Amino acid sequence: VSPGGRRPGNLDTRDDIIQAAKRVFAANGYEKASLRAVARDAGVDASLVHHYFDGKSDLFVAAMSLPFDPRQVNAESHDVAGEAFHVNARGARIVEGFLGMWDRAEGTGSSFASCAGAMAASPAVADAMREFVSERIWSVQTAGNTDDPETSQRRSSMVASQLMGLAFTRYILRVPPVSTDTPAQIAAWAGPTIDRYRLDPLL
Amino acid sequence: VSPGGRRPGNLDTRDDIIQAAKRVFAANGYEKASLRAVARDAGVDASLVHHYFDGKSDLFVAAMSLPFDPRQVNAESHDVAGEAFHVNARGARIVEGFLGMWDRAEGTGSSFASCAGAMAASPAVADAMREFVSERIWSVQTAGNTDDPETSQRRSSMVASQLMGLAFTRYILRVPPVSTDTPAQIAAWAGPTIDRYRLDPLL
Repeated sequence: VSPGGRRPGNLDTRDDIIQAAKRVFAANGYEKASLRAVARDAGVDASLVHHYFDGKSDLFVAAMSLPFDPRQVNAESHDVAGEAFHVNARGARIVEGFLGMWDRAEGTGSSFASCAGAMAASPAVADAMREFVSERIWSVQTAGNTDDPETSQRRSSMVASQLMGLAFTRYILRVPPVSTDTPAQIAAWAGPTIDRYRLDPLL
Repeated sequence: VSPGGRRPGNLDTRDDIIQAAKRVFAANGYEKASLRAVARDAGVDASLVHHYFDGKSDLFVAAMSLPFDPRQVNAESHDVAGEAFHVNARGARIVEGFLGMWDRAEGTGSSFASCAGAMAASPAVADAMREFVSERIWSVQTAGNTDDPETSQRRSSMVASQLMGLAFTRYILRVPPVSTDTPAQIAAWAGPTIDRYRLDPLL
């Protein structure tokens, strides 16, 4: 039992780990951060971090209050990678899934406005977020394609620009009908844009 | 001379008016705010507001620390409206102009991150911004088109989603190459998206 009377396994310990993770991710970014460094910063044994969190991406999702189900971040990426990469009309599915996820997070501490505000206020948070998305999602999603890495990166960044912009317009600027229609309706207009960035010659 | 020893025409007065304008725009939005209400809130004569600011849009740009040259907000809108509406390939020009403007504002108090952060933190600020853009820019830009109002609004909101997303990706998330290329290079990929939202059948 620690000086504060805490025991392994209580809520304070989990929260201490999350607070430590915020500091470590902000200082080192996502790639370079380790669960060991988080445990050291929190003053707990590394095994305790593994007890609460299913790896680094799980801990990151919790530390950044992201609305992802940590167990789905990998599952969905693998699902997408499992299909042939060059499937047209997947853009609409990507838009619908992305907005559906943020719709469900509205009114919680994981809303798009709160996540975007945290990134706007802190370049370190934005850097960690970019590395996380890059490593956990894009690298898996583009695993099946035959583009050179530079073109892949260009496609991913353009896809990100349309997705982030839809969220910004829907949840922050709240311009109708982007702010009022269903994710499926928005996907019908924006899906072809995503597919163009994913598949067409860009220049 | 006021109790504080101020005279009409000094910097304090101008700043008082800007602070009052922030309160009035946040409380009433852009459309319903009046220069008279701002003068009342600042405790100055309405003529003094007109002395410092060339109308409501000029005052709004100052109050929101926007990187627009107030005198250009109208001029450029009229310029665009003056051309035939259905000109293809204007999308690239819109993207290049939009990013060029925010590029010049980087490192100042009018950076995209600071404006986006203010909108993310306050729905009232975001509402006023949406009304401002809607009334001063979109309504003029779409003046020459023959779409019904609902379709016009849909086109404008989709254009906004791609523009805001490019800025978010370039200045906040900083994903290369969107964060590293020139506005003209980005315009080459994103321009056709803007033109599709402006001109093509959407559904």
